[in-house]
Amino acid sequence: MKYSFNVVMTCDGCKNAIDRVLNRLGVEEKAISLAAQEVTVTTDKPYDTVLQTIKKTGKEVRSGKTVE
Amino acid sequence: MKYSFNVVMTCDGCKNAIDRVLNRLGVEEKAISLAAQEVTVTTDKPYDTVLQTIKKTGKEVRSGKTVE
Repeated sequence: MKYSFNVVMTCDGCKNAIDRVLNRLGVEEKAISLAAQEVTVTTDKPYDTVLQTIKKTGKEVRSGKTVE
Repeated sequence: MKYSFNVVMTCDGCKNAIDRVLNRLGVEEKAISLAAQEVTVTTDKPYDTVLQTIKKTGKEVRSGKTVE
């Protein structure tokens, strides 16, 4: 599955934090854009698992959706 | 108990993320200094609970200790 989330990130430290928790979760593929405030994740894990992991960073998740 | 952690924070967004997860955890008192890279928490929760909550933000925790 591929998910996309709009996450408020204001510096590279914010971006790296998201990157780190997604690595720990063990997602197959990801792309994080600070400019677009977008986190795209490809994984076989459920949507809610990924969402909760991102939320636990304390970053504001504005929206999220399953892309494909 | 009062704990102190050295946490890598590079912008106000980083700081706010820590603040948010500590609020969710329900700590009694906290002080977060971006300049000092220091997070001080007063709570009756165990040290490891607070440490794990901070680690789940994806921020690097350089050190931590029980202050009093």
